[in-house]
Amino acid sequence: MTGQNLTGYTYQPATTKPFTAINPVTGKQLEGDFYPANHAHVNHAVQLATQAFPVYKNIAKDKKAAFLRAIATEIEALGDVLIERASAESGLPLGRIKGELGRTCGQLRLFADVVAEGSWVEAVIDSPLPNREPMPRPGLCKMLVALGPVVVFGASNFPLAFSVAGGDTASALAAGCPVIVKAHPAHPGTGALVAEAIRKAAEQTQMPDGVFSLLFDDGFSVGEALVKHENIKAVTFTGSFKGGMAIYQLAQQRREPIPVFAEMGSINPVVLLPGILQNKAEDIAAQYAGSITLGAGQFCTNPGLLLGVASPELARFEMALAKAISAVPPSTMLTPGIYQNFKHLSAELLQQKGIEVIGTGAEPESDGDNQAGALVAKVKAVDFIANPALSQEVFGPYSLLVVADTVEQLKQLIDVLDGQLTVTIMGETDELSDHKELIEKAGNKAGRIILNGVPTGVEVCAAMQHGGPFPATTDSRFTSVGTSAIRRFVRPVSWQGWGQDFLPDELKDGNPLNIWRMVDQQWTKD
Amino acid sequence: MTGQNLTGYTYQPATTKPFTAINPVTGKQLEGDFYPANHAHVNHAVQLATQAFPVYKNIAKDKKAAFLRAIATEIEALGDVLIERASAESGLPLGRIKGELGRTCGQLRLFADVVAEGSWVEAVIDSPLPNREPMPRPGLCKMLVALGPVVVFGASNFPLAFSVAGGDTASALAAGCPVIVKAHPAHPGTGALVAEAIRKAAEQTQMPDGVFSLLFDDGFSVGEALVKHENIKAVTFTGSFKGGMAIYQLAQQRREPIPVFAEMGSINPVVLLPGILQNKAEDIAAQYAGSITLGAGQFCTNPGLLLGVASPELARFEMALAKAISAVPPSTMLTPGIYQNFKHLSAELLQQKGIEVIGTGAEPESDGDNQAGALVAKVKAVDFIANPALSQEVFGPYSLLVVADTVEQLKQLIDVLDGQLTVTIMGETDELSDHKELIEKAGNKAGRIILNGVPTGVEVCAAMQHGGPFPATTDSRFTSVGTSAIRRFVRPVSWQGWGQDFLPDELKDGNPLNIWRMVDQQWTKD
Repeated sequence: MTGQNLTGYTYQPATTKPFTAINPVTGKQLEGDFYPANHAHVNHAVQLATQAFPVYKNIAKDKKAAFLRAIATEIEALGDVLIERASAESGLPLGRIKGELGRTCGQLRLFADVVAEGSWVEAVIDSPLPNREPMPRPGLCKMLVALGPVVVFGASNFPLAFSVAGGDTASALAAGCPVIVKAHPAHPGTGALVAEAIRKAAEQTQMPDGVFSLLFDDGFSVGEALVKHENIKAVTFTGSFKGGMAIYQLAQQRREPIPVFAEMGSINPVVLLPGILQNKAEDIAAQYAGSITLGAGQFCTNPGLLLGVASPELARFEMALAKAISAVPPSTMLTPGIYQNFKHLSAELLQQKGIEVIGTGAEPESDGDNQAGALVAKVKAVDFIANPALSQEVFGPYSLLVVADTVEQLKQLIDVLDGQLTVTIMGETDELSDHKELIEKAGNKAGRIILNGVPTGVEVCAAMQHGGPFPATTDSRFTSVGTSAIRRFVRPVSWQGWGQDFLPDELKDGNPLNIWRMVDQQWTKD
Repeated sequence: MTGQNLTGYTYQPATTKPFTAINPVTGKQLEGDFYPANHAHVNHAVQLATQAFPVYKNIAKDKKAAFLRAIATEIEALGDVLIERASAESGLPLGRIKGELGRTCGQLRLFADVVAEGSWVEAVIDSPLPNREPMPRPGLCKMLVALGPVVVFGASNFPLAFSVAGGDTASALAAGCPVIVKAHPAHPGTGALVAEAIRKAAEQTQMPDGVFSLLFDDGFSVGEALVKHENIKAVTFTGSFKGGMAIYQLAQQRREPIPVFAEMGSINPVVLLPGILQNKAEDIAAQYAGSITLGAGQFCTNPGLLLGVASPELARFEMALAKAISAVPPSTMLTPGIYQNFKHLSAELLQQKGIEVIGTGAEPESDGDNQAGALVAKVKAVDFIANPALSQEVFGPYSLLVVADTVEQLKQLIDVLDGQLTVTIMGETDELSDHKELIEKAGNKAGRIILNGVPTGVEVCAAMQHGGPFPATTDSRFTSVGTSAIRRFVRPVSWQGWGQDFLPDELKDGNPLNIWRMVDQQWTKD
């Protein structure tokens, strides 16, 4: 682990002032110097990615799949070295990191399967109609092809699963796009280890030089230079609203605007219907105390807002939630900056009109060690509606219970909400039909609508939508989790009038790749 | 035809200073006063669309299809009144307008079929895995749902097929989005007639008030107010680069940025390979003289750039093209503004270094009647590469032949091209394999790659991609022609843990709508 920037297959000699990683548990520096990339590194990485693109895009699907699988194998081969470093750099427990490593390698292999299976290109074939009047129709066929070099910003809250070889990298590589990762400065050592695994996998499977690069920076200039580079064709980001919008605006101000898939703030509202509270107030409180404080509340799908109608049952829920929260020990946050932000933002919110604390977790022992105590507050609907500040995301173990006077007011609450990754309805089956309008309104605000569950825990599957209306994400039409994430990095291309020899295999007569295709309006493997 | 703005079902009393349409053939005003919408009309149209959205979105698919079919029927019922008005306002011959009316109604009925068939929602179902270790997987299912109210800017060059009830309106309505059309000021009477047909069809099929509105403006303020309105969720535009980018930037500067599907400039390069010129120089010249001057060259897919390698065959092609062009009579352009722009821009280009006129069509009789004569020029590759001004679109009957010294230079020419709607390769089958790299490079620049055809004539089918890399369109991932155009107006939503009663029919067990769905990774109608 030299802390050097990796452009393609080559580690670049250091020229800049290094930075180090901090262990958020101890507040101490971890070993290893990391060197912010310079201008030449940025340009070299993009130039290599540009050259690699036409080669990598056209590599046979089984070879791309082998590359993705080799990355997973190489990451697993890092073993405890990786797990311990990722834990030390993030403050996340070893068990959580082990689970995340499993998910990361699972994602890589899932996308390998998607690529090897091949149907993801959505091949469409319209046969020629030589006898059509007044004009014959030429044969037309279409499939998805890779966009070009992609920049991935590593996320702080998933140092493996949404960082250097995370879901964004896996899906972009699967699509046929070279990837340049801007490493997250909070876990540069984890990033370096994973990047070396990718470099080895690329070499083993004979991928073109430049299919992958990793650049460090503890500031903003490397990210900015990457987003502005004319050869970059898409960007992914998971983090704050401010960070996501800065990248988005940069990308839109280019001569050629490019897609930015920024997953930003979401408070993931949970609507507690009256009937289910009568029966299960205590169970739901226990379930939600767990979801609110899972991983120190540092999930994009953390339930930051609970909505209910004033009633004895809601009072029971509130008491049970306060009790369950009081048993939650303080937990280390990812970085000192995230902890400070949590402390200030939650303190600020407690100053707002009508806010009342209803429950707190065990107090951290001191202030210096990045440990956040859980916090649940409540407010009346009328005060919530009047104060947009209460709708902002507080990244950490925090949730706000908003108490409406009536079901009608509950609907008004939903109307004022911003776009969300998820909304959850907690309700008994027999009361749902009384709340159809409310459920419809809630559904229009989110990318995923959950019944009687918790929003944390995002399945990696075909039917997952992890992306909601703005400001949850910059583009609600795409998902960053699940197999459809590959669609972010492609565009359709039509071929008109071409013979068999010059069509991609995906579009050839006889379907040599045996993929699902839509031929003359019918899905078929023939 | 009162010239009043239509908000939902209601014509609004005029309050503004009217404008009139001009017949570009005669230069004279046509009858009928049209009133720019005021601020209240804009807000009223958006408010009605917002209210109509949840209702219209959830209307059964057969009813939506009936609405689209009723629009086609009502447009056809307008008969000669519509055809004559559209011809008078656009200068396009009656025969062309008749054909365009057929295409317009064909598109509406095609989208009716798409909606009635139902598979377009791309339903995906992942069954629950209750016994999965370490955690059970909940049932998840996903489908595409409508985004919200859409603003459509009518295009000048297709007063029916890409205007008030054109492809954008048809696909947005098919997706479940209410539509507000900003009428193109060059054909307001055509717009008013078609809007009344839509109003009648909406009433007949009992659509909610606000599913459709038509607003007039001969300036920019109505369009700007619509794009900026927070309840508008997507915008379509077909026209100039300048106009498209102005709308795009407005939409990106909103608090909530929204998708803008702007189809802007494209010069649709045609690569003439050496072999086919040896055999068919004269045939290709005749074919291209027709494509360049079709509809006075006012198609987005007009071939504005011809690329070849210096040779006796290319000289034969050049001579034959000049001869064929000389036989083309002048033709009336859509508006005085478009004509003036053609005149100035083509004159400006002829001043550029190395440009040489190789052929002109018959001269127009006078300057005042918006008649453009065809024009074909040539330039050496080295001069073309050095001068980006030569790559701009000249909207009208114009094309530029760029002569490379070698095939290597031909590839360099392709490298400097901007994104395009189409690229065309003219080549004999046995020479194509000698030019694989060139064909690959060309394909990376465009949304549709044509072999041995002309780019004009855009099929409306499933495999069509009408949308290319920037600046051809603002979003190469979507098409504005063909059944996939519906995808511009939707986003995926996942349902997690819901029982049968609360899922949309598209996602219910037993597939009651009998649509294609991806169930546990397999496409099926079961």
